[in-house]
Amino acid sequence: MFVNKTKIVVEFGDCDPADIVFYANYFRWFDRCTTALFRAAGLSLKQLFKHHGVLGIPIVDARARFMVPSTFGDELEVESAVTEWRKSSFVVGHKFFRDGVLLLEGSETRVWAAAHPTDAHRMQGMPLPNDVIQKLSRRKRRPVRKRSTVV
Amino acid sequence: MFVNKTKIVVEFGDCDPADIVFYANYFRWFDRCTTALFRAAGLSLKQLFKHHGVLGIPIVDARARFMVPSTFGDELEVESAVTEWRKSSFVVGHKFFRDGVLLLEGSETRVWAAAHPTDAHRMQGMPLPNDVIQKLSRRKRRPVRKRSTVV
Amino acid sequence: MFVNKTKIVVEFGDCDPADIVFYANYFRWFDRCTTALFRAAGLSLKQLFKHHGVLGIPIVDARARFMVPSTFGDELEVESAVTEWRKSSFVVGHKFFRDGVLLLEGSETRVWAAAHPTDAHRMQGMPLPNDVIQKLSRRKRRPVRKRSTVV
Amino acid sequence: MFVNKTKIVVEFGDCDPADIVFYANYFRWFDRCTTALFRAAGLSLKQLFKHHGVLGIPIVDARARFMVPSTFGDELEVESAVTEWRKSSFVVGHKFFRDGVLLLEGSETRVWAAAHPTDAHRMQGMPLPNDVIQKLSRRKRRPVRKRSTVV
Repeated sequence: MFVNKTKIVVEFGDCDPADIVFYANYFRWFDRCTTALFRAAGLSLKQLFKHHGVLGIPIVDARARFMVPSTFGDELEVESAVTEWRKSSFVVGHKFFRDGVLLLEGSETRVWAAAHPTDAHRMQGMPLPNDVIQKLSRRKRRPVRKRSTVV
Repeated sequence: MFVNKTKIVVEFGDCDPADIVFYANYFRWFDRCTTALFRAAGLSLKQLFKHHGVLGIPIVDARARFMVPSTFGDELEVESAVTEWRKSSFVVGHKFFRDGVLLLEGSETRVWAAAHPTDAHRMQGMPLPNDVIQKLSRRKRRPVRKRSTVV
Repeated sequence: MFVNKTKIVVEFGDCDPADIVFYANYFRWFDRCTTALFRAAGLSLKQLFKHHGVLGIPIVDARARFMVPSTFGDELEVESAVTEWRKSSFVVGHKFFRDGVLLLEGSETRVWAAAHPTDAHRMQGMPLPNDVIQKLSRRKRRPVRKRSTVV
Repeated sequence: MFVNKTKIVVEFGDCDPADIVFYANYFRWFDRCTTALFRAAGLSLKQLFKHHGVLGIPIVDARARFMVPSTFGDELEVESAVTEWRKSSFVVGHKFFRDGVLLLEGSETRVWAAAHPTDAHRMQGMPLPNDVIQKLSRRKRRPVRKRSTVV
């Protein structure tokens, strides 16, 4: 599993009169973290849209479970990864941490969507390209520590 | 079940480069529809916060299933209702329609939260007041059609 | 001058930890009110984009002067009108009121933009069509009060 | 003048159907850059609000002039600085660049606001504290380049 970490700083305007992040903003950040996940895997969404015949990766399901609120000035770390591959869709999981404490977790189910062959106004799911699956599945190589060789 | 209908017009700025509503905005609208549901039931959230010792109705779970996208200029009709009462929380369901077609459905689980008795920085769930449950549970009276009395 | 009035209800999520509308949202509303102004004048932006060879009405200047804040639950009334016509651009003025009190006023300068003739990646300003100017300039007819004629 | 630079990556959800940043988002970023400017000067807005008797730094005027659009994936660099000090308010200027090209420039006029002495529902402007002015006025020391000494 290819896990990417994204840092998010909570801004004043992200928060509501209860002095915590207005919850819809977490879903905005889910989208940001999915973009960052693809980018970290060497997949620019923008170029995929242009060159792979894919029109987009629209959402068909999104959900989140909120445990601990966050507020203005907080520095969040989000761990994102594709947690499930289906035929023409995939699930991206997101976990938000602050100082190691899990604040919320959620997921997005997204479709790999191309233009419909006969109806220009619709999209249809397509099988995911293998190289996309591979790039988002490989483990991140840990930086190898150089050992001082003892003679 | 007390069902409230809210009309939403999709604005240009609600949409993304795929020319459809950016999905986080639906959760923003969920919140708007919950506010409208309470208001229609005679419960002003603002006054509840002030006078009932409740600090807020924070979200602990939110989810949505998206079936049909909507775009700039669309007029949506949302049906919202409390679909489940728990001890100190409740579930609000939202269904979005355009011309009678179901576009998406989702739910928010919200806690009836008061200040924690000993820790000023925390909130804790409280049993929901009966009058709140009753107001959000009653059927809406349908407008009675006046019949012309036949003598 | 063709003045259109738009009603806006301030939602919880529009407000920030200071318990007032987060100011960027007013500019989101400026855009909404400009759309509504065009619609009220019989000009659907969406159709203009499709049929008039215009790619959009992008903003080149936006400004606002804030006098009185507004907060969750407030009902605002916005008066919008084109206040100035230039060769290929125009200024839309917006005034926000609550119970007749002026809260803020601002303006957007927008360009009537078409595709650049030689560079597909650029837009260029075009002279505004006369019928657009006329529709947005005419006075709104006041509803004529029917007088009971005295014989 | 103390200038702070903030990096902003344009996200998919920041853009509209014209495939450029929806303009209200720039004002959201103005606020983010002002927060970052204060932080870089050693002034946490959050702590100022708590410990200096200041309730906030509300906006009384905001404006922007847009020259070049930006889009999904763009990396922007914003230069922010206080450009003017008044008695109880100040102007923050923001310039957005992409690869050295100026995209837009704008400003926010903000008030140093405390609770009104007699009316709990109002705020009033207060003279800006000297240490705040000083911290936001000093030049940033440039990193001194180490020279290789020639013997």
